[in-house]
Amino acid sequence: MCRWLAYSGTPILLDTILYKPQHSLIDQSLHSRLGVETTNGDGFGVGWYAPDVEEPAIFRDIGPAWSNRNLRELSDHVRSSLFFAHIRATTGTAVQQTNCHPFRHGRWLWMHNGAINEFHQMRRDLALAVDPRLFLEMEGSTDSEMMFYLALTFGLEEDPPGAVARMVGFVERTGHEHGVEFPIQMTVAVSDGQRLWAFRYSTQKQSRSLFYSTAVQTLRELHPDLTFLQGVSDETRLIVSEPLGDLPGAWNEVPESSYGVVEPGADVLNAFTPQAA
Amino acid sequence: MCRWLAYSGTPILLDTILYKPQHSLIDQSLHSRLGVETTNGDGFGVGWYAPDVEEPAIFRDIGPAWSNRNLRELSDHVRSSLFFAHIRATTGTAVQQTNCHPFRHGRWLWMHNGAINEFHQMRRDLALAVDPRLFLEMEGSTDSEMMFYLALTFGLEEDPPGAVARMVGFVERTGHEHGVEFPIQMTVAVSDGQRLWAFRYSTQKQSRSLFYSTAVQTLRELHPDLTFLQGVSDETRLIVSEPLGDLPGAWNEVPESSYGVVEPGADVLNAFTPQAA
Amino acid sequence: MCRWLAYSGTPILLDTILYKPQHSLIDQSLHSRLGVETTNGDGFGVGWYAPDVEEPAIFRDIGPAWSNRNLRELSDHVRSSLFFAHIRATTGTAVQQTNCHPFRHGRWLWMHNGAINEFHQMRRDLALAVDPRLFLEMEGSTDSEMMFYLALTFGLEEDPPGAVARMVGFVERTGHEHGVEFPIQMTVAVSDGQRLWAFRYSTQKQSRSLFYSTAVQTLRELHPDLTFLQGVSDETRLIVSEPLGDLPGAWNEVPESSYGVVEPGADVLNAFTPQAA
Amino acid sequence: MCRWLAYSGTPILLDTILYKPQHSLIDQSLHSRLGVETTNGDGFGVGWYAPDVEEPAIFRDIGPAWSNRNLRELSDHVRSSLFFAHIRATTGTAVQQTNCHPFRHGRWLWMHNGAINEFHQMRRDLALAVDPRLFLEMEGSTDSEMMFYLALTFGLEEDPPGAVARMVGFVERTGHEHGVEFPIQMTVAVSDGQRLWAFRYSTQKQSRSLFYSTAVQTLRELHPDLTFLQGVSDETRLIVSEPLGDLPGAWNEVPESSYGVVEPGADVLNAFTPQAA
Repeated sequence: MCRWLAYSGTPILLDTILYKPQHSLIDQSLHSRLGVETTNGDGFGVGWYAPDVEEPAIFRDIGPAWSNRNLRELSDHVRSSLFFAHIRATTGTAVQQTNCHPFRHGRWLWMHNGAINEFHQMRRDLALAVDPRLFLEMEGSTDSEMMFYLALTFGLEEDPPGAVARMVGFVERTGHEHGVEFPIQMTVAVSDGQRLWAFRYSTQKQSRSLFYSTAVQTLRELHPDLTFLQGVSDETRLIVSEPLGDLPGAWNEVPESSYGVVEPGADVLNAFTPQAA
Repeated sequence: MCRWLAYSGTPILLDTILYKPQHSLIDQSLHSRLGVETTNGDGFGVGWYAPDVEEPAIFRDIGPAWSNRNLRELSDHVRSSLFFAHIRATTGTAVQQTNCHPFRHGRWLWMHNGAINEFHQMRRDLALAVDPRLFLEMEGSTDSEMMFYLALTFGLEEDPPGAVARMVGFVERTGHEHGVEFPIQMTVAVSDGQRLWAFRYSTQKQSRSLFYSTAVQTLRELHPDLTFLQGVSDETRLIVSEPLGDLPGAWNEVPESSYGVVEPGADVLNAFTPQAA
Repeated sequence: MCRWLAYSGTPILLDTILYKPQHSLIDQSLHSRLGVETTNGDGFGVGWYAPDVEEPAIFRDIGPAWSNRNLRELSDHVRSSLFFAHIRATTGTAVQQTNCHPFRHGRWLWMHNGAINEFHQMRRDLALAVDPRLFLEMEGSTDSEMMFYLALTFGLEEDPPGAVARMVGFVERTGHEHGVEFPIQMTVAVSDGQRLWAFRYSTQKQSRSLFYSTAVQTLRELHPDLTFLQGVSDETRLIVSEPLGDLPGAWNEVPESSYGVVEPGADVLNAFTPQAA
Repeated sequence: MCRWLAYSGTPILLDTILYKPQHSLIDQSLHSRLGVETTNGDGFGVGWYAPDVEEPAIFRDIGPAWSNRNLRELSDHVRSSLFFAHIRATTGTAVQQTNCHPFRHGRWLWMHNGAINEFHQMRRDLALAVDPRLFLEMEGSTDSEMMFYLALTFGLEEDPPGAVARMVGFVERTGHEHGVEFPIQMTVAVSDGQRLWAFRYSTQKQSRSLFYSTAVQTLRELHPDLTFLQGVSDETRLIVSEPLGDLPGAWNEVPESSYGVVEPGADVLNAFTPQAA
């Protein structure tokens, strides 16, 4: 339905990750290999943290990423140490800027691939559960934005893994009340500008693909000739819907029902279990 | 905030009304005289009933009407006996297709100029009052669409004036609960393809401007040389936010707190009073 | 690079041809089978002749056809007896309305699939050959529009097959002067609202695919149960970049280096040979 | 027809100049005071030089600047020591990205307010004079882009004032050959990332308005309480179509038929005289 990537590490031009790789996200917008659809042309977005600015920037537009000249320009001129990029394939909701990822709340960015099944049927019940002060901020009509505001309602800013678990638990319970067997399907990335969380989960345990890059140090040993690897810090990490190329040893599947944290020091990979909200 | 017009009568090219008049709606998009803003460039829309098609067509886009070539093309090629046109000046909600007027539900079209004051604060409470089956259809984030779905909830398809009165009553009650002194400001047009209702009302009794055209028969006597008047039926009528020109005797203000009905036979002008929902 | 279709016959809703068929043009915008690219998402256009209006209408926009709601609306409400539709996959020129097909000059519509190889190198020389009065009208930057204005310069309005032959001859000569071995690749449709010409040619004799529909009378005998065929006249004809479905006996390849004319009475299929301009 | 500004000085967020001033460029897009039209809503653009990147970035879009959320985002996150911003009011040419300013060639940016009168009539002759290698790069259909490529043809990269003088001389000669009494009307800004040139000229000697900011040192003496002035270098300078506010002593009109150079050391103001090309 969509494809995304999240980068954390040495500040680089967005271009380095968005356009340069053999099977870059831009290439995936036309030729996704592991997605539900090969084409992801219903809008796109990037979000990035800039030095000395409190809130991250978001740039989102409604055409395909592959032909967007402004995205090309930004990618050639903006450097960031933490950024999100997302290409959308709508499952029916309108193609409009307010439905493009990433979504933002204060310092927080959120993006999603997947769906709430029968979202249309549940939308009202889910909306009612959003904190009324947060409800004011919602502008779009997607399940993805709803998941973000539910997670914020359930404490995302204090405890991201717990809040996401409660959001998923709540969506599943609401779905079951509506007779939906498998209510949720998701890979999600969320960040506060310091840390980056990535979740892979679906009620049916057949989640969309998600990969993380091998530790830079290990990659350097495997591929001592790759100059790119010399220029980035040991802590640099990528999380992607599908690998950006075929480099042996570079990509590892995030296991079913788990989540990872990219943070200063050692990264973490944990099991993910929905919780009662 | 916005400007609109509604036409009912002899089938004509949209161009005849949208572009040709001296102070046409397209001219108003750049140089509104009676609006809150002189510029109405935040999207536009037309809706028209076509022979042999159940639902009316809507064509809406997010740029200014004045430079939209597709609107120009349609206006030169589409004929209709009943159509709506609207130019938008947003008061903050996103500029996107799903926020452009007219809105449609089955055979019904709706468009609005004005605002629910402090809509942001009331939006959740108003949304809760929308019939859950209708809630599924809402795609945008405007007060105007919310008013339409509330009116549908309160029986628009059976009793338009009553349903609009209950919608306004409900919005005013909700507004007062939120401490808003003057909750609503509106001119509204609504049609089912046979009849056309136009409302002018505001809590403060200082409503946006609204005019209806003088009976064609009277106009022909006043202006026997105007060939346009020879080509249209006696029942042809226009309702507009502001006059399309300076033709003496052509335009009459819809009185404060009233509504009109354009229908086969004599048209009607009645007082409008909000009702308890 | 692109896909197109041209319809001539009994007036029908555009929807009947654009959306309803199993492998409709809209389906081809995402999943072209015979095109150079599977995705044709860089803008689209329709052009149609309306009763009582001299010039045909054109509706063109820059996003993908598959998600365009205005195209969906028009297709559900506009009837025509002769219309063009085109979906674009750019080979580098800007994605903008003035580069979308069909192009129009007076009563004439033109659309194209293919390319002038090394167009960039030849563009200036080709532009110089356009009649200065016609040059004023050119707004875009594509090879396709250039071919149209060259054909107009070479007499399209008097002798379409001759003018297209001279245009191709001129492009080939210019290409060879620039050292381009195979200067042109094209399928082209052109109409004046009465007749419809379709050309298939490439210097290399490996032209893009082009098909025409079998005579309605023959199809009715083959498929007596297809109600659609009962509702259209014997003269109804479709020309398409690729078949709209798998109906046996329905589609015939336009031979390499040939052109067809759809006109009142028997249609014509002739050999096509470039000529000196 | 258009409004623009050029900034050179201490690196600042674009927001500081584009949105914050009382009568900012964004305000001018709705309420221009000195322009030919009050509304400048037919596209916009910004161009900025970023550290460590050879070519400047350009961000251009086709809707009005006042409602563009991506422009708002960029302005809040991008810092630059030299940037251009432009809002467009078309005089007829298409509203499309390739017609938005600034235009770029290598390290050079160009933007323009004004018009070549009867450009349509002269376009072909002017195009013929563009260096064929540069002709390849032209993508739009405006007089402004044509002026840029003529100036490049006449040596802009070596001698900006001389090349612009020759461009104007050539346009005037061509205009006169076409019977146009007053062929050109312009304020132009051009930069290579180091220096900034601004021209004010029209054949009729009734040029569009252009202003430059008073030396920062003088302004600090006039307004010792303005904190903004404490944060910027002595060399900081703004050139604008119309003043960004009413600060006494802040704005000086660029004289008719003259040009200025903003550069390291003292800035320069010279007479401008067209030359034979």
